[in-house]
Amino acid sequence: MDDDDLRRGKPTLHIHAGEAMAILAGDAMLALAFGQIVQRVTDPALAQALVAELAHATTAMIAGQVYDTLGGLPPHLSPADQLPLIHRNKTGALIRASCRMGAMIGLSTPTPPPPSLHAITAYAEALGLMFQVTDDLLDALATTEQTGKRTRKDAASGKLTYPGVLGLDTSRRVVADLLAAALTALASLGEPAQPLRDLATHVAHRV
Amino acid sequence: MDDDDLRRGKPTLHIHAGEAMAILAGDAMLALAFGQIVQRVTDPALAQALVAELAHATTAMIAGQVYDTLGGLPPHLSPADQLPLIHRNKTGALIRASCRMGAMIGLSTPTPPPPSLHAITAYAEALGLMFQVTDDLLDALATTEQTGKRTRKDAASGKLTYPGVLGLDTSRRVVADLLAAALTALASLGEPAQPLRDLATHVAHRV
Repeated sequence: MDDDDLRRGKPTLHIHAGEAMAILAGDAMLALAFGQIVQRVTDPALAQALVAELAHATTAMIAGQVYDTLGGLPPHLSPADQLPLIHRNKTGALIRASCRMGAMIGLSTPTPPPPSLHAITAYAEALGLMFQVTDDLLDALATTEQTGKRTRKDAASGKLTYPGVLGLDTSRRVVADLLAAALTALASLGEPAQPLRDLATHVAHRV
Repeated sequence: MDDDDLRRGKPTLHIHAGEAMAILAGDAMLALAFGQIVQRVTDPALAQALVAELAHATTAMIAGQVYDTLGGLPPHLSPADQLPLIHRNKTGALIRASCRMGAMIGLSTPTPPPPSLHAITAYAEALGLMFQVTDDLLDALATTEQTGKRTRKDAASGKLTYPGVLGLDTSRRVVADLLAAALTALASLGEPAQPLRDLATHVAHRV
């Protein structure tokens, strides 16, 4: 939708397969995701809750993309307040749902220790926003070789970004604060949560 | 995807709201459909079955659209055998799922008489194919004023259509045969199935 021709150093789908196929592939992956849930999750009540979680997050992601691509954000909000509204939806909602769905499956099985849905949700919200701030920073600072996609696109397109609105130093401090929040959220979960800590640390250190 | 500018006499969504918004609206409707099922259907086992039915039909619809837009049909099949393969998926799959999902909900409630899923499926498969054959006939025979969308597009784009492959007379006979099959399928369901008979008759008589 941003008409970018590169992702992870390879041509994007609409470049190498055409726009129609790229749209259809996106539609198919959406339908397949819901189909996989009901096919693989044998407990019907759990499957129902997971479908609700994914449907909610998907519509939130689409709302975020609408805000980002087409505007329509509440005009009384300052750019600094509009930014998290875009990003919590566009990038954050599906990261949040991924983490929560894992926790919901964990809570439904008798294997201890039970994850805390509240803790995982707080972790995921910090992670999602942190991912987008570091993505904005990389767009401003890194080369196409480093990121595998075109950089400096945000400024050229006049998009609201963290470095653009808050500056580089404050954006870096936001990343550090979000990493601290993510790790704090996991404090009660002990050793089994270590992969989640590693993931958050990895994302924070991309920049 | 066919870049048509009219539907039901009004501008299509990508014409009046832009391509990005049209793609996002399609994605949102997909996610909302699954969300509505799990929100409104209280029996988790039924919700799970309905999500599976809709996910299966949606991926079939997308496969049909891929065949129709991009080709890729088994080349050893004759055009007359390729046609139903496109249309059973592109148009038929969601009509089939709509009918079956209604029957599945009916079967889960204690209100008699129980619909027969087998009978409803046979009806819906005939209805879906009949809809597409009449749509092809309308494209060949009717005016834009009559249909509310551009006509004569199929021949211009070199698409496989029933009138193009089988001729007008044979296509009309196919419609009559499919109407008979749809009505036969409903024979055992008595008076409560009358709206389904009316619907099939209405579709057949569009041309």
